[in-house]
Amino acid sequence: MDTVLRSRSNTVTIGADRPFCIIGERINPTGRKAFAEQLREGDLSTVTADATAQVQAGADMLDVNAGIPLVDEPELLKSMLRTVQDAVDVPICIDSSVISALEAGLSVYEGRALVNSVTAEDERLEEILPLVAQYGAAVIGLANDETGIPETPEKRLECARVIVGAAGDYGIAPEDVIIDPLAMTVGADTEAVTTTLATISLIRDKLGVNMCLGASNVSFGLPQRHVLNASFLPMAMAAGLTSAIMSTADPCVPAVRAADLLLGHDAWGASWIAAHRARQAALQEEATAAP
Amino acid sequence: MDTVLRSRSNTVTIGADRPFCIIGERINPTGRKAFAEQLREGDLSTVTADATAQVQAGADMLDVNAGIPLVDEPELLKSMLRTVQDAVDVPICIDSSVISALEAGLSVYEGRALVNSVTAEDERLEEILPLVAQYGAAVIGLANDETGIPETPEKRLECARVIVGAAGDYGIAPEDVIIDPLAMTVGADTEAVTTTLATISLIRDKLGVNMCLGASNVSFGLPQRHVLNASFLPMAMAAGLTSAIMSTADPCVPAVRAADLLLGHDAWGASWIAAHRARQAALQEEATAAP
Repeated sequence: MDTVLRSRSNTVTIGADRPFCIIGERINPTGRKAFAEQLREGDLSTVTADATAQVQAGADMLDVNAGIPLVDEPELLKSMLRTVQDAVDVPICIDSSVISALEAGLSVYEGRALVNSVTAEDERLEEILPLVAQYGAAVIGLANDETGIPETPEKRLECARVIVGAAGDYGIAPEDVIIDPLAMTVGADTEAVTTTLATISLIRDKLGVNMCLGASNVSFGLPQRHVLNASFLPMAMAAGLTSAIMSTADPCVPAVRAADLLLGHDAWGASWIAAHRARQAALQEEATAAP
Repeated sequence: MDTVLRSRSNTVTIGADRPFCIIGERINPTGRKAFAEQLREGDLSTVTADATAQVQAGADMLDVNAGIPLVDEPELLKSMLRTVQDAVDVPICIDSSVISALEAGLSVYEGRALVNSVTAEDERLEEILPLVAQYGAAVIGLANDETGIPETPEKRLECARVIVGAAGDYGIAPEDVIIDPLAMTVGADTEAVTTTLATISLIRDKLGVNMCLGASNVSFGLPQRHVLNASFLPMAMAAGLTSAIMSTADPCVPAVRAADLLLGHDAWGASWIAAHRARQAALQEEATAAP
C-alpha cells in the first residue's frame, strides 16, 4: 500500500518496497525551553533554520508541533506551517493533540498533509477523522485506546484494526492510515523494543498498512541516544516499519539509508553510491578551496 | 542453548539471551597483501598488534586464519595461535579450510576453541567432526552442501539440520554447533540480506542453535562498508543471530552493543552506561593531561 503526501510541488510516497520515509522531529517545542520561549515571543527564525537543516540532513518530510502551555496553539501552528512551507518544499506532518489546531493547520497547508494523530478512542476518531476526510489528508493512528497503551502486540493490532475500520467509515482508504505501533523507552522496560518489533511484524503481516513511530522514544533517558536510535531503526525497518519521526543527526540518517540498501529498497545501491560520490566531491571541493 | 568457549583463563558463552559475541575478523591474510608478505617472512608483529587492538575495541573472541597460497599453513597457523594467545586472553576461532591446519591449530590451542568451519558436505563432516570431538571443541557449520549455497532459507535450514545431526553422531551436542546462515553481498544480489535474515529467523525458530556469520560480506564492493555493516548487525541480531565474525571498527561495535540493550540483553543498560562513563572518564583524563 502506498501513502501519497504532497507539499507545494513535491510528492513523497511511503510504501513497503520503497526507501524509508524520514520525518524530521525537530520542529517541536516539547523539551526545548529556549525554542518555546522564542515561539511565545513570535520569533520563528529557529523554525526556518530547523526546517532547512533537517531537509539538508536528509529528511523527506517534517513534523511540525506547536504544543506550548497557555499559547494560542491554532494560531501558532498556522504561523509555523507558513514559515516551514516558505523555507522548504517537503510534505508536513501536522502534529497536535488539539482538534482546533489540527483544523487550523490543515486550513493553511498547501498540498496533502499527514495528520498526527488519532487513536482508537471513540471520541478522537469521531472528532479527527471527519477533518482528515474533509481535507483529503492522510492520518497517523496510534495503536492505543481508552484503556491506555496495550502491552501485547495482539492488542495493539486490535487498536490498529479499529482505526482502519473507522477511517473507512469516513471514506478514508486504508493506504491513507499510517499506524504508529508505539515505541517506548527501553530504559523503563527491557521488553519495550522487542514488543514494538513484534507489533510491527504483526501489523505488516495482518493489516499491511504503512507504519510510523517516534523513533527517539526508545532511547529516552539513556546516554548516546543517537547511537541507540541508529541501531533501532534498521531493526524496525527489517520488521516492516516504513517511516519514522526521528532525529536527522548522525548516525541516524546513514543507518536508515544503509538499511534501505540492505533490504533491497535501493536497487544496486544507486542512491547509496550517489550520496557517497556527492560527499567525496564536496570534500574535494573543500580541500581545493582551502587556502 | 549456550555455547561455551574458553581461552587460557577466560570463558565466553554464546546464547540467545546474552550479549552478542563479537569475533574480530582481522587476523586473516585474505585480501591483505602486506600482512601476507609479513607472515611469509615470519614476522608476526602485526598479529600481536591486531589481536590487542581488536580486543581493546570490544572483540569478545578473535578469528585466526593463516590461508596464504604455497605456505605451510599448519605451521604458520600454530605460530599465529601461539602469538595471539600470548597477546590476549580471549577464546579463538581457528579458521581454515585445510584439515591438517585445523588439527595443528587445535594441538597448540589452550582452552576450548571454536573450529571454523565444516559444511553439510559428507566428506567435510567425516573429516572435521572427529577432530572437533577429539579436542572437545565447538564448530561452525556453514549452511551449504555439495550443490553449493542454497538460495532459499528452507534449504539452508536443511543443511543446518544435516550438520547438527552428523555432529550428534560424533557425540558433539547441538549447543556446540554454531550454524552460519551465510551472508552474501547485497551488491551482487538485492535479496541477499533479506534471504539471510529469513534464514536466521527460520533456524532460530526450528533448530534454536547459536548462529555466526561473516558480517562484512554483506557490504563487499560497496562504499562506506562499516556503515552498512553497522546497519546490518542490529537487523540480524533482532532476527536471532547470536555472534558474528566482524570488523571492530567504528560504528560496528557500538551498533552491536546498542542492539544488545534494545533487545533486552543488557538489563537496564548497565553495560551501555558503564561503557559511556568509562569513555567520559578517559576523555576527562586526556583533557587534564593535556599541556
